[in-house]
Amino acid sequence: MTFDELKHQDLGCVRAEIRSGQYTGHTAGLGGRTLQANLAILPVSHALDFMRFCQRNPKPCPIVGVSDTGNPMVSTLGEDIDIRTDVPAYYVYRNGELSETVTDLKDLWREDFVTFALGCSFTFEHALQTAGIPVWHIENNTTVPMFATNIATVPAGPFAGPMVVSMRAIPNDRIADVIEISKNFPLAHGAPVHLSDPKKIGIHDLSRPDWGDPAPVPDGTTPIFWACGVTPQAAIVQAKPPICITHKPGHMLITDIADNAETPIHPSNQNPTGEK
Amino acid sequence: MTFDELKHQDLGCVRAEIRSGQYTGHTAGLGGRTLQANLAILPVSHALDFMRFCQRNPKPCPIVGVSDTGNPMVSTLGEDIDIRTDVPAYYVYRNGELSETVTDLKDLWREDFVTFALGCSFTFEHALQTAGIPVWHIENNTTVPMFATNIATVPAGPFAGPMVVSMRAIPNDRIADVIEISKNFPLAHGAPVHLSDPKKIGIHDLSRPDWGDPAPVPDGTTPIFWACGVTPQAAIVQAKPPICITHKPGHMLITDIADNAETPIHPSNQNPTGEK
Repeated sequence: MTFDELKHQDLGCVRAEIRSGQYTGHTAGLGGRTLQANLAILPVSHALDFMRFCQRNPKPCPIVGVSDTGNPMVSTLGEDIDIRTDVPAYYVYRNGELSETVTDLKDLWREDFVTFALGCSFTFEHALQTAGIPVWHIENNTTVPMFATNIATVPAGPFAGPMVVSMRAIPNDRIADVIEISKNFPLAHGAPVHLSDPKKIGIHDLSRPDWGDPAPVPDGTTPIFWACGVTPQAAIVQAKPPICITHKPGHMLITDIADNAETPIHPSNQNPTGEK
Repeated sequence: MTFDELKHQDLGCVRAEIRSGQYTGHTAGLGGRTLQANLAILPVSHALDFMRFCQRNPKPCPIVGVSDTGNPMVSTLGEDIDIRTDVPAYYVYRNGELSETVTDLKDLWREDFVTFALGCSFTFEHALQTAGIPVWHIENNTTVPMFATNIATVPAGPFAGPMVVSMRAIPNDRIADVIEISKNFPLAHGAPVHLSDPKKIGIHDLSRPDWGDPAPVPDGTTPIFWACGVTPQAAIVQAKPPICITHKPGHMLITDIADNAETPIHPSNQNPTGEK
């Protein structure tokens, strides 16, 4: 199916199309109001340091799920999520360099892999739109502009590097609202990390993002900057693990978790055990 | 100094008294409005599984800080926190059994230790009291009643076991408020896990808690149950690591983080690096 056809399908259908390799496109707006996630798969040798890196940088790297070592199922995020097939497209990094793009991991999977799923901005963007706040890049079907900043992440082992931010131009009379709304989504980057003057965080030309597409900052709006899920990819490039697999930007893992759930733990994991 | 003297001292003084071994008592209400934390120190061999256990059970085990392996300083929680000395009293578990209580870790510290700090209920209890909601065990200077339940935690490696909950009797007309208030503190156990009938979660006698002191449930109030920081200690007993060190209940790590901070990362970690 095409993206426009999949938009009207339920999560089961969307996942089946992705799993079978029939759909390899981006996931914005697919699967209903479920949590979507950034992906990083690493050998267990690097897993504890990467998990510490995420804990120390909770705004760019909010952990929503971690697999058992070698187990391709991410059971806390849904009853039947196979990370080898359930993301439309993957980037493979070798020694910190992007080496290939693949649409499944059947041949690449290893018994020492640990999967990390990290919250993404789709969740709070949805909430902004619901509150009547325009989100230009969605309305214009482009990718949000992203910039490396002069804000350092808190390092852990070999993982370090600049915080990457995304920019959205917000009408001046809604700035207080977007801060309040996004703060309610700590697993989707939370409140902005910077308001207004881009130079203060090392961004010298808003029209030339480091990733994504440029977006205008019209009169009466202010550029607002949020921590961005590209940050861990920058840290992975710096750490140079022998292998690391991420999602292709925009091509997310769609989970079974409601995007307004209090915790990212699927209810099927939390059964009463019966009488004490 | 005594507890009553320390109550009126600032955080620096409180930490100095604890660090020097002069004060070995409980920490409720000490150090102003800073985040206090439950403690678990484990060998690195068990660290990734324990961290996965906490991620999968975010309500009982909200991670607020993780040290580098072998480093006794927990730098994200403050500028000068030495986990060997800055908790008033510690429990030492060997092979899952409580073996000794100590007041510092100078002789026990090992190069393979990883420190985990987990959020505790003091934060949301403070918020309840600020909203004019009575918290009986605080007003009566007892320990909150805690119960093992029939709710299973989500296992990770050797870590598993029942969720432990704490009970507070809440006036019926304030139940909606306490849910809303505590939900705002995801790093302090969040919203309740159960309301009303204790039998449904395997608690058959509210007057006989498994830990802590009994508390009344007067007419016009309802017993409300929150996930509790004793849960990881129950999982540690079950996992039987060769050694594990926790705080002595009530004798918490007092951090430098404001208890209403958006993230538990001390600002001293997040310096701009200068121009890009």
